[in-house]
Amino acid sequence: MIMLFFMEQNISTEIQDEGCAAVVNLGRDVPLRLDSGEEISSFDVAYKCWGELNEDKSNVVLVCHALTGDHYVRGINPITGKRGWWETMVGPDKPVDTNRYYVICINVLGSCAGTVGPASINPVTGQLYGLDFPVITIGDMVRAQAMLLDYLSIDSLFAVIGGSMGGMQTLQWAADYPERVKTCVAIATTWRHSAQNIAFHEVGRQAIMADVNWNHGRYLDGEDKPHAGLAVARMAAHITYMSESGLTSRFGRNLQDRDEVAFGFDADFQIESYLRHQGISFVDRFDANSYLYITRAMDYYDLSADYDGVLANAFQGTKTRFCLLSFTSDWLYTTVESRHIVRSLNAIGARVSFADIEMDKGHDSFLLECPDMDAVVRGFLQSEADAMEVQLP
Amino acid sequence: MIMLFFMEQNISTEIQDEGCAAVVNLGRDVPLRLDSGEEISSFDVAYKCWGELNEDKSNVVLVCHALTGDHYVRGINPITGKRGWWETMVGPDKPVDTNRYYVICINVLGSCAGTVGPASINPVTGQLYGLDFPVITIGDMVRAQAMLLDYLSIDSLFAVIGGSMGGMQTLQWAADYPERVKTCVAIATTWRHSAQNIAFHEVGRQAIMADVNWNHGRYLDGEDKPHAGLAVARMAAHITYMSESGLTSRFGRNLQDRDEVAFGFDADFQIESYLRHQGISFVDRFDANSYLYITRAMDYYDLSADYDGVLANAFQGTKTRFCLLSFTSDWLYTTVESRHIVRSLNAIGARVSFADIEMDKGHDSFLLECPDMDAVVRGFLQSEADAMEVQLP
Repeated sequence: MIMLFFMEQNISTEIQDEGCAAVVNLGRDVPLRLDSGEEISSFDVAYKCWGELNEDKSNVVLVCHALTGDHYVRGINPITGKRGWWETMVGPDKPVDTNRYYVICINVLGSCAGTVGPASINPVTGQLYGLDFPVITIGDMVRAQAMLLDYLSIDSLFAVIGGSMGGMQTLQWAADYPERVKTCVAIATTWRHSAQNIAFHEVGRQAIMADVNWNHGRYLDGEDKPHAGLAVARMAAHITYMSESGLTSRFGRNLQDRDEVAFGFDADFQIESYLRHQGISFVDRFDANSYLYITRAMDYYDLSADYDGVLANAFQGTKTRFCLLSFTSDWLYTTVESRHIVRSLNAIGARVSFADIEMDKGHDSFLLECPDMDAVVRGFLQSEADAMEVQLP
Repeated sequence: MIMLFFMEQNISTEIQDEGCAAVVNLGRDVPLRLDSGEEISSFDVAYKCWGELNEDKSNVVLVCHALTGDHYVRGINPITGKRGWWETMVGPDKPVDTNRYYVICINVLGSCAGTVGPASINPVTGQLYGLDFPVITIGDMVRAQAMLLDYLSIDSLFAVIGGSMGGMQTLQWAADYPERVKTCVAIATTWRHSAQNIAFHEVGRQAIMADVNWNHGRYLDGEDKPHAGLAVARMAAHITYMSESGLTSRFGRNLQDRDEVAFGFDADFQIESYLRHQGISFVDRFDANSYLYITRAMDYYDLSADYDGVLANAFQGTKTRFCLLSFTSDWLYTTVESRHIVRSLNAIGARVSFADIEMDKGHDSFLLECPDMDAVVRGFLQSEADAMEVQLP
């Protein structure tokens, strides 16, 4: 299979830039054991990759995606028809340079873009999983990714990189597979979900479950989907992705297509129209049950919990080199949280770089054009790759 | 009617402490003209009062309530069976001392605790208003309050005081009726709703309107109410009333009645259980359409808009003495916003006191036990009352 990739990738630069997508069925012999104690066997994992593996397989970069993301980092996303979600970061001559690195991104467990999730068929029953899908954790997502890399005979990762929930996975990777992770780039993230983080997710879940069409998760074979509830969940979450100042400078109290307020409940303000659009467009590309499962995994995330509440112990003896980035206007996973991770790593003498990037766009900054972030990531990866003598493919 | 109050209030201290409640029907001769251009006539206004009017009627304090509040400031609230919402602030020997001041609180226009709102009967049609109720503004609420005070022959207010939406009303009072307002105490409030404020309200409204039981506002005569949507709206709003640090110190990641997470979608965490309770208990005391109307009024609030965008111009020439209070942990209506109001008042030479109170409970701090807030309000009112020689009743 890997050979097939290489052949495909050699066809033309264009195809190389767009990457190669594949779905692999895993766990047929040895099932994936989840943190809940449950197991899943014979499950699909979808991924995409760009660039070429070098001779000693030392140039692999694993990109971890966020809550509603997918493995379509670059190129046209076949689900949305839009460009990939991190083309500013990953690609030829980008900070994660596909001329140098072999980049892979794997759709997370529980999601709905190809990897098994609640919208998949349960091989045991032949029925759609729905709420029969087991509740998963960030650790489970990472374990599934490791299974795929085993399958692809990739032992070592030059870098694991991700923002938000992607950042949580990078830290989990560094904690669970220290020998496999050479460098870890965790952006706009946290080491545990706070009460406020959980609260916002719980609002979203309640909005979905309050939708009569949700029907206790059994909506998948019917016509009516819990789109209204999912849209509300997305709207609530989306506010947390943006900063107050960013919202003010972008929308303020500007009216939408009118000179005066209409004294009604239509979208008078641009911010209302924008949020409604965010909600409505989201439901076409995301499964409501997946939203429940992945937010649950994030709420369960507490990397210190397995280490007597001391985060530093999760990384004891690590040789991984860390790069932490936060954004000054991110109030979802704040600079204070990144600093806590940095201090924990300092406490055990781990090598860690940290940059708090001045940017007023809030949490979503990591997805946006951000030269400062790009420069930090580019510089960190380049110097580490040079130091480790990572060869070109 | 005023005489009746005085007689009742003389019966016993207990009754005086619990206050006297009344509902007055206004607008039968001259209707209330709304900012939308519509009019409402023959409408009920519910209010409650405590203390006694002094001889020259110079000791009246108008308390303005917040979004989901009502006029039950003290004593048992007949709707909820619980104590009033501001007993720490208003009462005998409290900062708003009912031994000295005659305190009145009026249920706002559009609400559902006795004053006319979308759950009331439209006198023109004999049917429930529902969405036929006109969209209102904070200015309309204040104008209705002024009509009631006219009816009660109260020309002058020693103080107007309120927090959150109550604070918006106090500023609107000072702008629209400068000659009637001697002092204005605005707590944890703003002069205009920001894009983020509007965004959170829009999520709440969309949650209500997404509930199939909402039925375009025509649920009032049926059995099924949009309780699920209203509960979600309340949950989303409630997060904005508390600070991240307050949530962390109160709930953190503590589990609810269990030692381990349950790997399911029940309320594993205390914060989830708490939020669900906030949502569920809210729907028993509040009307979903009222929630739409009052959040809309708040979103429309921009005191500077009628003054070429310059807030100071709203108070040009004012003789009112202002007291502004903010809380360090309030991220809904921040200290920065209170400072903007203070600076605007300074710019026109208005007399203004300002205190930014160190408190980690977020926006809701104004409703909680807060000795620093109490001391500021008590001191401000006392010194102003002494300076104006406000006599005891």
